Amino acid sequence: MRKIVIAIDSFKGCLSSEALENSIEKGIRKVWKDGIICKLPIADGGEGTVEALTRALGGKKITCRVQGPLRSPVEAVYGWIPERQMAVIEMASASGLPLIPWAEGNVMRTTSYGTGQLIADALQHGCKHILLGIGGSATNDAGIGMLQALGFRFLDQQGKETGDGGSCLSQICQIDTSQVLPQLKTCDIEVATDVKNPFYGENGAAFVFAPQKGANQEQVKLLDDGLRSFAKLIQAKQGINVQDIAGAGAAGGLGGGCVAFLQAHLTPGIDKIKEYLNFDQLIHDADLIITGEGKVDQQTSQGKVVDGIIRSAQKYQIPVIILTGNCQEKNEEIDENPFVSCFSIHSAPVSFDEAIQPEYAAQQIERIAQMSCKLFRNGYEASILCKRKEL
Amino acid sequence: MRKIVIAIDSFKGCLSSEALENSIEKGIRKVWKDGIICKLPIADGGEGTVEALTRALGGKKITCRVQGPLRSPVEAVYGWIPERQMAVIEMASASGLPLIPWAEGNVMRTTSYGTGQLIADALQHGCKHILLGIGGSATNDAGIGMLQALGFRFLDQQGKETGDGGSCLSQICQIDTSQVLPQLKTCDIEVATDVKNPFYGENGAAFVFAPQKGANQEQVKLLDDGLRSFAKLIQAKQGINVQDIAGAGAAGGLGGGCVAFLQAHLTPGIDKIKEYLNFDQLIHDADLIITGEGKVDQQTSQGKVVDGIIRSAQKYQIPVIILTGNCQEKNEEIDENPFVSCFSIHSAPVSFDEAIQPEYAAQQIERIAQMSCKLFRNGYEASILCKRKEL
Repeated sequence: MRKIVIAIDSFKGCLSSEALENSIEKGIRKVWKDGIICKLPIADGGEGTVEALTRALGGKKITCRVQGPLRSPVEAVYGWIPERQMAVIEMASASGLPLIPWAEGNVMRTTSYGTGQLIADALQHGCKHILLGIGGSATNDAGIGMLQALGFRFLDQQGKETGDGGSCLSQICQIDTSQVLPQLKTCDIEVATDVKNPFYGENGAAFVFAPQKGANQEQVKLLDDGLRSFAKLIQAKQGINVQDIAGAGAAGGLGGGCVAFLQAHLTPGIDKIKEYLNFDQLIHDADLIITGEGKVDQQTSQGKVVDGIIRSAQKYQIPVIILTGNCQEKNEEIDENPFVSCFSIHSAPVSFDEAIQPEYAAQQIERIAQMSCKLFRNGYEASILCKRKEL
Repeated sequence: MRKIVIAIDSFKGCLSSEALENSIEKGIRKVWKDGIICKLPIADGGEGTVEALTRALGGKKITCRVQGPLRSPVEAVYGWIPERQMAVIEMASASGLPLIPWAEGNVMRTTSYGTGQLIADALQHGCKHILLGIGGSATNDAGIGMLQALGFRFLDQQGKETGDGGSCLSQICQIDTSQVLPQLKTCDIEVATDVKNPFYGENGAAFVFAPQKGANQEQVKLLDDGLRSFAKLIQAKQGINVQDIAGAGAAGGLGGGCVAFLQAHLTPGIDKIKEYLNFDQLIHDADLIITGEGKVDQQTSQGKVVDGIIRSAQKYQIPVIILTGNCQEKNEEIDENPFVSCFSIHSAPVSFDEAIQPEYAAQQIERIAQMSCKLFRNGYEASILCKRKEL
């Protein structure tokens, strides 16, 4: 083996990508003493994106005190890559679901304001490019909170500013842009999302995502009405049919809000990040790629890290090993892909609580990396032996 | 691939070797549409030995009503291979620990009588060769029960026959062989065991195995004294120092009893069974061997099926895949063997109770067989590709 690439997503709530890479490297080294092991940070726009891109592109992390989903202060972090005048922002850091206690109905009033504050902070640093990952949000406000933090004012029939959250969307009649931060004009914003849902309707933000955020059926209906009404306003004021845009429903409609008011592009996170990392160039001559994520399921093939790695590997016919905490759910694209093998890290029956202990997982992943590499090497050498026998 | 061998031990309490073979075959066929898949029944003298040898050598199973460890009747089964005038007997079938309810002190009086009855039955069939697997016994009687069923009489100082179990061993002063079955003279008996323990002492039958069979510390001491006393008698009457024989302590000293009174040989089960099956000849041209057992641990390398397969494979440099329900315990011989990779069947955290459900296990093993074969094939083809690139 000349070159093995490790490019693995974090195991959420268990081990960071970096920790996983180190354990896998140890396992590989038990099989191949020499050869290059290339550890490539990677992410798909979800959790770990700031970490991966700052590590890969030589940036730093900036901590900001911003307003959380229910306006309580939170310490949020984003990535700043000075060389590229680029910020990497994860919406979840400022406006994520885990930042507030779970309660039915929260999603009626949660705001994306903190995400806007992070953007504003980046703009103060002279930011010209933003990559905004919008997974894991607590909101269904079509991004009006974020836009308020950037100077937009959303007014009701009386010309009064509306309150927070999706429940206020249908009251908005006018938009005042006179105080919008001027730096926005010279900053391009890319929104990383693997979601294709429309703004409203039965596949829209409210119906598909709001229940996970605490909306009951009646509230879902109200939120959907709000998005519908806001879409009309966008059409009238901005001349954009937001419902036509695949992914406008991502992050409670914030995807659509970004397109309508920030001239943002929605982009599949993994592809954009691979582009930033020059990923294909880095892996094209690899003999084997080891990737993984906490759980491999149907969603994996909808633009998650593992899916992006497989697509790149396939271009160059590079075999892929997926290591994961859970691959119980059938995924035909993986099962039937002749280049891809998928292994769970577990060597025995184990409870979920035990399985996510970092020490356990680190030791298990080292073992399975060793075993799978050994098997791959045995196949490799069997072929050589077979030729020698002239069979 | 031209030829893949499947030779797997049963997963005790979960799936038979045959069921495992079928699931693994399905997994392999998803990777290689053609090529020979050779399913070789195999066992190591423990549970599954009758099944494997009757399947492989074209025998049948004979059911016998015999006396269990506490003299209650049990239906025991042994294998009969008419062509070879050979019987395959698992002691556990007649005198096994699971045949009686668990109770402290049982082992003081449990008898191997039923095992002797199976041997007697085989002798009635005209048996000339017996392979006796002695794992899983409930007894610590040095085989006197078995010998009684074959016509031996063990007498105390008053010339009265002693009772059952290890607690009577120290009372034996004389042995009456006048009624021993004459057919024993023309029957050779091989005792399959992977145990090396001596007859008595701190590594002997009582100290090492009796606690598992329900003896408390005091009882262990009594049983050890009994074995010690019986060894003296054997020395005096048979001129054999049974303590010198590695494995004499197997099955509560029945190993020693077999050697002393039946001219039996103790033999590592797996090696003997491979010999019967002509195993090495059948696998020497295989490209890959898939083996396994329910649990892979330190004991695996002490003569279990997996160990025997690895040793045979090694001779011909054939890569081995081990599939198992549990490989959590470190086994350096396997970890460091460059030809051997070991995978658990589990694709996610799972409870032990769920893990041993036959349907679950069958589905999981098919999946892991597919994935591991795919990885092996990818290694194989990577090597071809690599050559094509002239690297």
